[in-house]
Amino acid sequence: MKKAYVIKIGGNIIDDDKKLSAFLKSFASLRDEAALILVHGGGKLATKLAEKMGVVQQMVDGRRITDAETLRIVTMVYAGYINKNIVAQLQSGGCNAIGLSGADGNAVLAHKRIVSGKTDYGFAGDIDAVNTDLLNHLLKENFTLILAPITHNKKGQLLNTNADTLAQETAKALSEFFDVTLIYSFEKSGVLLDTNDDATVIKTISPSYYEQLKSEQKIFAGMIPKLDNAFAALNKGVKKVVIGKAEALHHLLTGNAGTTIIHE
Amino acid sequence: MKKAYVIKIGGNIIDDDKKLSAFLKSFASLRDEAALILVHGGGKLATKLAEKMGVVQQMVDGRRITDAETLRIVTMVYAGYINKNIVAQLQSGGCNAIGLSGADGNAVLAHKRIVSGKTDYGFAGDIDAVNTDLLNHLLKENFTLILAPITHNKKGQLLNTNADTLAQETAKALSEFFDVTLIYSFEKSGVLLDTNDDATVIKTISPSYYEQLKSEQKIFAGMIPKLDNAFAALNKGVKKVVIGKAEALHHLLTGNAGTTIIHE
Repeated sequence: MKKAYVIKIGGNIIDDDKKLSAFLKSFASLRDEAALILVHGGGKLATKLAEKMGVVQQMVDGRRITDAETLRIVTMVYAGYINKNIVAQLQSGGCNAIGLSGADGNAVLAHKRIVSGKTDYGFAGDIDAVNTDLLNHLLKENFTLILAPITHNKKGQLLNTNADTLAQETAKALSEFFDVTLIYSFEKSGVLLDTNDDATVIKTISPSYYEQLKSEQKIFAGMIPKLDNAFAALNKGVKKVVIGKAEALHHLLTGNAGTTIIHE
Repeated sequence: MKKAYVIKIGGNIIDDDKKLSAFLKSFASLRDEAALILVHGGGKLATKLAEKMGVVQQMVDGRRITDAETLRIVTMVYAGYINKNIVAQLQSGGCNAIGLSGADGNAVLAHKRIVSGKTDYGFAGDIDAVNTDLLNHLLKENFTLILAPITHNKKGQLLNTNADTLAQETAKALSEFFDVTLIYSFEKSGVLLDTNDDATVIKTISPSYYEQLKSEQKIFAGMIPKLDNAFAALNKGVKKVVIGKAEALHHLLTGNAGTTIIHE
């Protein structure tokens, strides 16, 4: 089976032009060894634009409430500005990138998050299906895919979707056709035993070791959803999940940096 | 040869949700008779957003000067908001639309307009090449293509490009593979003998009749660039060019509405 890398980048890379440019060069250099899919979040640009436009952003537990005006902003910033700038930069390096929102070619179908409890997240989209046929077809044509975390419900409604989840669902869907490595890049060097010390990266985490770390409360609470997602992806066919710094992309892939999530 | 329709819509449709929705239904219903390419402009949304953000828009002879901040705005609005909303609406009607900027798959290569005379148009892009292979390939796969008037120079720079020109260049490029009809939709019913009377639509204009109309000064000056473009397209292989109201799309195609530009 051919290899595919699904790589999620977040705000720490997207908000820094130099870092982004260096990352994209490193990313593009992988195109001969694997099919490439980049999933990007939005960084601080959407929040800044909302401020400029005087649109108040409501956050609940660190999550943005997507009202109609905010949906318009994230659609513009994620599917427009960020996505097209990444595509143009990759094209400049000879990497044949194509940017997709979930609406394009019905790439990612979602539904508006059902209101449970007190919080209505508005136009937040929970993923129903990734269009494996479309992605597989475009990857076979040697396109590098750049996915913006904007999905649709096939009823004409765009929806704001969590980029981590989009990366995970894409990785799972592509496992049917590829040996998939899923990389979550973030601001830390990996999963740390001491959140203040980047030298305490845990090299590998297996399910049993994960249980042990959790029971000993050695894992920072904020990492738990990411790790739960990582194991969920492994259990659905993804070959390898790595968490670490985007700057160390090549080392993340070889196991020389970051935390690799493994089966037992 | 299979037929292709390249249809350019402008602000009068884009700025009106109801009109846009009706137009897209009418547009989508044509998908069994021809390959479909929709080229959209930006309407007033970009100007409104610039106002909200306090970005002053400079216009010279009705043309926007694209400074760096304006480029960011048009990229967000054209390639993000408008493009993805059109795609999502078409998908809701079962039309397999995919939205592309010129950077996506290197669809449209351009260069930054060379400064001649006093006016520097900034990040305005003049088209060098439409990627016929890419468009033809996607059309063969039965995708309906939605093109945003944002191009790139393959050096990482996005550029703001005139949507009429993009439609014309796309129509010309596709003539190699398709019998192409190019439709410019605008707010009038066609080319009018009396600009204030929609009943004075000229049904057909041939090159000799065009010369006569011009010499008799019977054509509104603002129409001349559009007609020059129309004849240029015909001379480069486009089969038919029609100018008229988007609301009358089907009638424009059958010759029962609008102005059809013909060879002698």
